[in-house]
Amino acid sequence: VTSPAPAARSADQRRRDVLARLAGDVDLWIATAAPGGEPCLVPLSFVWHREQVVMATRGDSVTVVNLRAQPSARLALGHTRDVVLVDGRVALAQPAELDAATRRAFADHTGWDAAPEPGYVFLTLTPARIRAWREENELRGRTLMRGGLWLT
Amino acid sequence: VTSPAPAARSADQRRRDVLARLAGDVDLWIATAAPGGEPCLVPLSFVWHREQVVMATRGDSVTVVNLRAQPSARLALGHTRDVVLVDGRVALAQPAELDAATRRAFADHTGWDAAPEPGYVFLTLTPARIRAWREENELRGRTLMRGGLWLT
Repeated sequence: VTSPAPAARSADQRRRDVLARLAGDVDLWIATAAPGGEPCLVPLSFVWHREQVVMATRGDSVTVVNLRAQPSARLALGHTRDVVLVDGRVALAQPAELDAATRRAFADHTGWDAAPEPGYVFLTLTPARIRAWREENELRGRTLMRGGLWLT
Repeated sequence: VTSPAPAARSADQRRRDVLARLAGDVDLWIATAAPGGEPCLVPLSFVWHREQVVMATRGDSVTVVNLRAQPSARLALGHTRDVVLVDGRVALAQPAELDAATRRAFADHTGWDAAPEPGYVFLTLTPARIRAWREENELRGRTLMRGGLWLT
């Protein structure tokens, strides 16, 4: 707060930084909501595979129960001074429904093969909106994807 | 993932770690939900003051609009391998309604006096449930507060 923020990144640079984080990070925060308006927020491991975010968790978790009722989620990567927010719809799949390449990509990236875990399901989020900013001087121009299309 | 996790912390240690994070951290993630089930998740600055989490943001933000309809929020502090989740209800206050000590505590801790900012409101969350864990071996015993009461 005391040192001045660096100059705002260009849209191209932000897109590169977002893609580097999607490729390199292992965990994210996922927010979902119950129809009544009760928020849920938990950390999950993920892999960025074929332009989608693939996660896994228990089928009886609040996250999955919420997504069955309303498939919208918001993901947060990074930290509070290097924010990446990804909004999208989530498709649920039983392990047996998942193609082998996706299963392998998830296991290779996270070090955890979720497919044989009893009661686990896979969550695949297709990004519709992506925003990224660091400090206040980057709030302008923070939207990098809208309607599933990169703006840069 | 490759190195074994350290031994699970005791409940007392986790409570101390949670209180240290509440006292020392400056930012957190706040999840809220629209009545229709649309999740919102954003970072906010905060201060831990009188056993409550005090935040500030624009009164026309999605977070505040959601909280006016349904005052439940979930906060995440720390990171995905040192998780602190705080559930509670949020009271909204105009800057003029806020007592001077709380306003000062927020400004001193965050380095930002939100009170004179046009259109900003203060959010005060009273913790009802707090959970904390690092790795999978800490999932058991992760609930440290329930119904507003510390279990340790």
